[in-house]
Amino acid sequence: MDKLHKGWFTEFSPDDLEKMNGNGSQDSSKLLKSDGQEMGGAWPGQAFSLQVKGVLFHAKSKYQDVLVFESTTYGNVLVLDGIVQATERDEFSYQEMLAHLPMFAHPNPKKVLIIGGGDGGILREVLKHDTVEKVVMCEIDQMVIDVAKKYLPGMSSGFTHPKLDLFVGDGFEFLKNHVNEFDVIITDSSDPVGPAESLFGKTYYELLAAALKADGILSSQGESCWLHLNLISHLVAFNKKIFPTVKYAQSIVSTYPSGCMGYLICAKNAATDVTKPARILSDEQVKEMKLRFYNSEVHGAAFVLPQFVKAALE
Amino acid sequence: MDKLHKGWFTEFSPDDLEKMNGNGSQDSSKLLKSDGQEMGGAWPGQAFSLQVKGVLFHAKSKYQDVLVFESTTYGNVLVLDGIVQATERDEFSYQEMLAHLPMFAHPNPKKVLIIGGGDGGILREVLKHDTVEKVVMCEIDQMVIDVAKKYLPGMSSGFTHPKLDLFVGDGFEFLKNHVNEFDVIITDSSDPVGPAESLFGKTYYELLAAALKADGILSSQGESCWLHLNLISHLVAFNKKIFPTVKYAQSIVSTYPSGCMGYLICAKNAATDVTKPARILSDEQVKEMKLRFYNSEVHGAAFVLPQFVKAALE
Repeated sequence: MDKLHKGWFTEFSPDDLEKMNGNGSQDSSKLLKSDGQEMGGAWPGQAFSLQVKGVLFHAKSKYQDVLVFESTTYGNVLVLDGIVQATERDEFSYQEMLAHLPMFAHPNPKKVLIIGGGDGGILREVLKHDTVEKVVMCEIDQMVIDVAKKYLPGMSSGFTHPKLDLFVGDGFEFLKNHVNEFDVIITDSSDPVGPAESLFGKTYYELLAAALKADGILSSQGESCWLHLNLISHLVAFNKKIFPTVKYAQSIVSTYPSGCMGYLICAKNAATDVTKPARILSDEQVKEMKLRFYNSEVHGAAFVLPQFVKAALE
Repeated sequence: MDKLHKGWFTEFSPDDLEKMNGNGSQDSSKLLKSDGQEMGGAWPGQAFSLQVKGVLFHAKSKYQDVLVFESTTYGNVLVLDGIVQATERDEFSYQEMLAHLPMFAHPNPKKVLIIGGGDGGILREVLKHDTVEKVVMCEIDQMVIDVAKKYLPGMSSGFTHPKLDLFVGDGFEFLKNHVNEFDVIITDSSDPVGPAESLFGKTYYELLAAALKADGILSSQGESCWLHLNLISHLVAFNKKIFPTVKYAQSIVSTYPSGCMGYLICAKNAATDVTKPARILSDEQVKEMKLRFYNSEVHGAAFVLPQFVKAALE
């Protein structure tokens, strides 16, 4: 089975794809490992397909394979290295939860850093907060920004906003020069295979902690509890040595492998309860902010974990 | 693309499958309609695949195509009419939530009716409640029970339990002869295409209401909010004319289309708050009951709906 076959795009696990292709283009040795234990990046034995109306863009950037296609029922779809990053139909769940969990847990977020997020979805959500004075974004791949501007207009509208400072470069390197500066930092990365690999290690989180102000809050893409419980446990465990508050939340996202996505939310101040919004939204405000997934009740419920996840993270 | 192709089973939407096969074996006219509006049963343009280690059973019953295969990473998998019903790896989410939401919302459920549920998973969960004196189960397809006993032993262990009265027949017809009899009724059906179609209509719910005792609680498979919001809105709306309490909950189930499943929970007594467990479990009790998904906090959080679902159901 090919990735693009008879009018369907199929997302295989990177390790399955490597086996099928019989080459090392997706080297399974690149799957994140820690202490010799495989930690994630893969979901062998399962695949998800979307029907393709037409391919809009397909090229190799300096960092990854970039594909945008129009699907028959999910709108336009952004795919990086064979993995669906966003579809126009369900992207709001991921964008709103990854952005608003830390943003609403903070009473007054003024300066926000987004690492990754080249499709613009997180930026769109962050800019909905009137408190925000400056958004700094550091995305490694200019091609992702360019295709988002062209093919995902609903997500990328924020790129022309005057509050944005956009840097095209390595988020890991960027952080080294920024200390005690941000109220909220959001890591919107792809999976820990390829360019985002360094964004799942302890050193990265130490840099994030240093870049946050004393009452700062961090949000990171936290993978799926069905597929990556080892990786999630590992992330939670080492972050508890860096941050006094480390919590895991999740939401449904239909086109991500296994249909859900996790969010790792950490706070530098032990008194911050990230599981409760510091600012409660009225129904009217929810409408004004054009929220389709997040509301103040959803915030708290997202941190209530299925028993098997709760047990694994305790 | 075939359903079984090069070592993979692919679950297509019934309507896509019909188009591919160019025949009427899955007639899209059978998709549930109401007032001329298509209500559900389909998820066009997307497909989910599992890698097959070996086919264990494949035959046509009187009612449907019954397939059981061993997958490479999800254990044994039960498939009815081409749709995944349960995998050994993630079935506990659906079984526990569909069963325990009504069971724990009830202070003392003694007599329980299961409509459908031939794989035995709901029965296994219901029997965990010490309050239960009698479980009546009405499954239409003997073949489903037989393959579950043989190939899904972890789900079907309850079939030999002395508290069980098992009837093989039509749940719709069964209900006509049972009035004011059950504390909890659970409808564990497949999608509204094929043998389960009658289990999504208003008449069925009127029969359920009649079969419940005055303080009885009902739980029904409620499809996915990503795929079937019209159908769910329709179910909620007509049930509000039958029951004073109608609520919708959901949980993640990785191998169901779009990765989540809904639960329609209705109570005959207006004073019953089904969103709160009437019996709270200690951590010790959660372990004793071998719960892997449900706990007392998960109960309440399951009813907190994403904004787009909340708005649609209001």
